[in-house]
Amino acid sequence: MYVIKVGGSAGNNYDALCDDLAARFAQGERVVLVHGGSDETNRLGEALGHPPRFVTSPSGYTSRYTDRRTLEFFMMATGGLVNKALVERLQARGCNAFGLSGLDGRLLTGKRKATIRIVEQGRQRMLRDDWTGTIEQVNTTLLRMLLEANYLPVVAPLACSEAGEALNVDGDRAAAALAAALNADALLLLSNVPGLLRNFPDETSLISNIPQAELEDYLPFAEGRMKKKVLGAQEALIAGVKRVILGDARRSGCISAALAGAGTVIA
Amino acid sequence: MYVIKVGGSAGNNYDALCDDLAARFAQGERVVLVHGGSDETNRLGEALGHPPRFVTSPSGYTSRYTDRRTLEFFMMATGGLVNKALVERLQARGCNAFGLSGLDGRLLTGKRKATIRIVEQGRQRMLRDDWTGTIEQVNTTLLRMLLEANYLPVVAPLACSEAGEALNVDGDRAAAALAAALNADALLLLSNVPGLLRNFPDETSLISNIPQAELEDYLPFAEGRMKKKVLGAQEALIAGVKRVILGDARRSGCISAALAGAGTVIA
Repeated sequence: MYVIKVGGSAGNNYDALCDDLAARFAQGERVVLVHGGSDETNRLGEALGHPPRFVTSPSGYTSRYTDRRTLEFFMMATGGLVNKALVERLQARGCNAFGLSGLDGRLLTGKRKATIRIVEQGRQRMLRDDWTGTIEQVNTTLLRMLLEANYLPVVAPLACSEAGEALNVDGDRAAAALAAALNADALLLLSNVPGLLRNFPDETSLISNIPQAELEDYLPFAEGRMKKKVLGAQEALIAGVKRVILGDARRSGCISAALAGAGTVIA
Repeated sequence: MYVIKVGGSAGNNYDALCDDLAARFAQGERVVLVHGGSDETNRLGEALGHPPRFVTSPSGYTSRYTDRRTLEFFMMATGGLVNKALVERLQARGCNAFGLSGLDGRLLTGKRKATIRIVEQGRQRMLRDDWTGTIEQVNTTLLRMLLEANYLPVVAPLACSEAGEALNVDGDRAAAALAAALNADALLLLSNVPGLLRNFPDETSLISNIPQAELEDYLPFAEGRMKKKVLGAQEALIAGVKRVILGDARRSGCISAALAGAGTVIA
């Protein structure tokens, strides 16, 4: 049992990913696929006159400011387009994919951060009307019910707050939470780089192996979105997932390659 | 057990619908909710520079021409925004709603009509690259699994072709197929009119009761979208659903009112 997260950035090859995934699923492997939708959300926001806004937290993480309108774009992009197009690709390859979001049946419950602290021009300030959250619980009963019925769950990164509100959650950390809850053998975080790079963006500077105990030391190498992947990796490993692989979603056979050790293996 | 379809037209009161639905669900009633998304799809198409196009079949039914780009808007609107916003409303009312589309786990399989025959300026012609379909099968095992686990399924009107393609299907007929497959006691088709009107749009001309055997005689009163509702009603009744109610989604307590006989009851 393993959990895969695939980002939506330029260059990621969804067709090749689904070829590989469907072939492995047909062999009886049990998998949960988590996806993103940031780029599609950005495109929608730009086209609909409400462009995305990214903010930086005091601890240096960059994230999307998700006001209510942006949450609606996020629902359309992740719950609608990306989720259903992945399910369609898998169904076309004979794989019985089942798309859902963390909101559905409270698959993922989390805590809303309605007010976030950000750093802007060197000064801290508060932003309100935010619809992001952090995951606190996974409905494993629901997930196991789908897996036992031989579906391949395809999960959009939304969660449900205690009060029933929809939340935008980070896809990498959602995948980590799912892997932890399922006690997965592996968590694969696939994106448009070969793994963690010592000198970003120089792809020849790939870091191949990181012992779990030394992960903190490698954090300075994580740029941009890679920061949350390393954070997700850490959360999954602490919760008992055996290994996390940061792999390349641009190449064909990307899942098989990552499981065979290509990319950055943290164990 | 009953199935409700609610349209997305102006005036429909989703909040009131969810109040009523959550209260009834809490009493132990088992329900499947099907929704539309036409208006949201239109808005997206207009805003993104690919406006909707409606066509008329030789038998007089009006439907959306769904090229691939329109199908993507339809995925965003129905699978994303409308579905997740309904699930959110229900979750906020303590009801464990579970959003999915007919594509997920092949809940609804159908036949794609890649080429459709239309009438334009009095002449018949063919249109290609269409992504609509008609439902042929319902995965009742999946639906019963969700219902037995006490979820309230909220279904977006997409289906899966035999080849695994995503299809835009009519929401009223999807609800009829679900009601038939579940052997439902009732099918409620709720929209922004009180029911079938003898003199559309005069709301005082409501037709209260139609015996099933006479349904054909009432077809001439069905204008626009009401035609597919009457067709769906017919399909459900033939398949054994006990009664179909065409009701008003604008009023509070719309489900309870329809079940109590308000609207047009066909039995």
